[in-house]
Amino acid sequence: MFKKILIANRGEIALRIIRTCREMGIRTVAVYSTADRDSLHVRFADEAVCIGPPPSRQSYLSIPSIISAAEVTGADAIHPGYGFLSENAEFSQICADYGIKFIGATAEQINMMGDKATAKATMREAGVPVIPGSDGLLDSIEQGQQLAAEMGYPVIIKATAGGGGRGMRVIKAENEFEKAWNDARTESSAAFGNDGLYLEKFVEEPRHIEIQIVGDQYGKVCHLSERDCSIQRRHQKLLEETPSPIMTPELREAMGAAAIKGAQSIGYEGAGTVEFLVDKHGKFYFMEMNTRIQVEHPITEEVTDFDLIKEQIKVAAGVAISGRNYTPKLYALECRINAEDPANGFRPSPGKITNLHFPGGHGIRIDSHVYSGYVIPPNYDSMIAKLIVSGQSREEVLTRMKRALQEFVIEGVKTTIPFHIKLMDDPGFKSGQFTTAFLEGFDFSSL
Amino acid sequence: MFKKILIANRGEIALRIIRTCREMGIRTVAVYSTADRDSLHVRFADEAVCIGPPPSRQSYLSIPSIISAAEVTGADAIHPGYGFLSENAEFSQICADYGIKFIGATAEQINMMGDKATAKATMREAGVPVIPGSDGLLDSIEQGQQLAAEMGYPVIIKATAGGGGRGMRVIKAENEFEKAWNDARTESSAAFGNDGLYLEKFVEEPRHIEIQIVGDQYGKVCHLSERDCSIQRRHQKLLEETPSPIMTPELREAMGAAAIKGAQSIGYEGAGTVEFLVDKHGKFYFMEMNTRIQVEHPITEEVTDFDLIKEQIKVAAGVAISGRNYTPKLYALECRINAEDPANGFRPSPGKITNLHFPGGHGIRIDSHVYSGYVIPPNYDSMIAKLIVSGQSREEVLTRMKRALQEFVIEGVKTTIPFHIKLMDDPGFKSGQFTTAFLEGFDFSSL
Repeated sequence: MFKKILIANRGEIALRIIRTCREMGIRTVAVYSTADRDSLHVRFADEAVCIGPPPSRQSYLSIPSIISAAEVTGADAIHPGYGFLSENAEFSQICADYGIKFIGATAEQINMMGDKATAKATMREAGVPVIPGSDGLLDSIEQGQQLAAEMGYPVIIKATAGGGGRGMRVIKAENEFEKAWNDARTESSAAFGNDGLYLEKFVEEPRHIEIQIVGDQYGKVCHLSERDCSIQRRHQKLLEETPSPIMTPELREAMGAAAIKGAQSIGYEGAGTVEFLVDKHGKFYFMEMNTRIQVEHPITEEVTDFDLIKEQIKVAAGVAISGRNYTPKLYALECRINAEDPANGFRPSPGKITNLHFPGGHGIRIDSHVYSGYVIPPNYDSMIAKLIVSGQSREEVLTRMKRALQEFVIEGVKTTIPFHIKLMDDPGFKSGQFTTAFLEGFDFSSL
Repeated sequence: MFKKILIANRGEIALRIIRTCREMGIRTVAVYSTADRDSLHVRFADEAVCIGPPPSRQSYLSIPSIISAAEVTGADAIHPGYGFLSENAEFSQICADYGIKFIGATAEQINMMGDKATAKATMREAGVPVIPGSDGLLDSIEQGQQLAAEMGYPVIIKATAGGGGRGMRVIKAENEFEKAWNDARTESSAAFGNDGLYLEKFVEEPRHIEIQIVGDQYGKVCHLSERDCSIQRRHQKLLEETPSPIMTPELREAMGAAAIKGAQSIGYEGAGTVEFLVDKHGKFYFMEMNTRIQVEHPITEEVTDFDLIKEQIKVAAGVAISGRNYTPKLYALECRINAEDPANGFRPSPGKITNLHFPGGHGIRIDSHVYSGYVIPPNYDSMIAKLIVSGQSREEVLTRMKRALQEFVIEGVKTTIPFHIKLMDDPGFKSGQFTTAFLEGFDFSSL
């Protein structure tokens, strides 16, 4: 087992990883930017190394600084968390070159799954259902228009290097094609330095459902069932739940088997997530694979009793898994508490938390790096806490979440709590019958 | 279902009950003494009524004040929590007379189980194993001495009205009998206004293991497995765990069946606990039955997924239970965080909490009514939080508990946290092989 793990991240996920390391008797090294001196991840780690100022490219994205910190402190492994360098092939390779275990995917796997067109082709070959579309990148607008005409509208064009909705356009009819094409190229080029686009049949009334998988070094992969992440605003997840309200045992078995097949086809080790779109007929299509821990992993932990960070560390150290699949025994729901003003377009609201009190009691879990008096820096993403609620039924979980949200005290900054409270009373959300477009019709003005 | 429940209690258990009521859509009425104005149970209830000053007999034990508060607010049920009026037969009867549902036992049941000698005789008749001893109260010291000689020393004398170790003496040899008898009588008379004593064979190397039961109005009783409460200081529980490290499926089935038989023999409804001593041979003996919710109920909730307060409310409202018994799927451990100085005889440490931060993450539950800036009044018991940890194995839970205790920040008052941290590293505790005498040999001086 590893003796010392450096956590190449910040905020709640850094603290999350430190907690599990402590429980495993593994020493921890935090790295932090000058903006994060007062974060709890720095306080709770055994050692902490300042790696530079914000913005992230000078600190959390600086591979030399992080490798130096690992060398100086004698860390034998690095956990990258999510975001930042967690899906950076170069970083994974450099760790390997330095003899430091990267607790994540290999450079090759990251490259394969990081390029969306390659990922899709790989999965199609492995027999995983994919959305009909162009065979890799489009050579020209004419090729795209011809393919769209063949498949029938609506279609969607996506940037091969895209993420978070950037470089992506839905096209409902041929006369919209040219503008969408140009907009997506411009946006993708600006955001990612890559204007490669591909085209897909647009899945109508889709739900975003992802399968958590864990693989070991001996070729075994199991799934820990699904998470429904359909509640999104501009492709950003705000709330996740498991099991999915639309899941059936048959669909879970089919999606789980597909996720395992896909992961095995690239020899995947560690925790990963295979994201699917599920249409209104219960047909599912591979979207992408995340070769890292997800923000929303705790809901899976609550319903399967696994500590997924512990599983990541164990398989990275060569421990074999049982290979058994897990289905949820409970319901769990996560609300992302962001320092944002939901009544004003979710505008970030950094600043000092003047008063903080977390909800407690049965079925409540909080993952957070903030405390009373903490100053939220303006430099990073605005998530300040994850409120995770579990219970015996979806109804129990929704009422418990509402109770917990009402108990939650955060003063000094605006948060997404009022949005989540309103959501818990929304008939559409309560019904469980919604698509990824659900929030497009949501009234944020009264929050 | 009830429309409005008055909670005749304070502190964490009042808040605990309010939380479940909110989740069930039931309105709540808090009552509070002038010393508890700033408690969270007052803030989170829908209504709050001040019922007088400390000490408790002028407020939380004042039946007229509480009944008045229920009448004024129109509450249709009263939840008494634990302690205070929870096992007060008169209060239960008065609630019934006023047409207010008492969420607890009937006056008759409370009387039967509240008098220890009667409780023992009732259980013996029902076929529940009891500790050999006097047939009810002792008439004289001579009768006690003769019985002790027949059973063989060691024996124990106990006050029939006793609790918390008061009016109780272990007698190892005949020459200690007279002093112990006199001491126990004096103490019992002073504490309870009742000097009735009974005698029992003293169980050597005992463990304190209790069975949680739930009964409904239709004669069905089920058990939710055991809690091991052997870690006690002067008969006060400091830590509880489930499953018991010494439990076997056969012993659980036998103890569960005995607890159910005992509860059914008195027509018990609601949540209750049957406490047993288990000796080193795995033989178990009825000690007492608590006709109320226990402090340590959350560990049972964590391993069975039941909300026991919800179960209490449901069966009080006439909902039927399935009658199925539950065995733990996980491990859970509760540490009672008291505002006491463990290095100085657990002397109470009331005062202002100047800084507070609860631990969080996977497998952590906090039940607490305190917050940063809260002033712990000197008038009540000193428990300020329950830290409950669950996980897949006892080892995982112990390491997780230690991690959580180390994260726990409470400044301004002394607490039992250093004691619990030391306990998590204690080889005797870690082994799982200990008796109720475990803490007698514990070194508190280094805390």
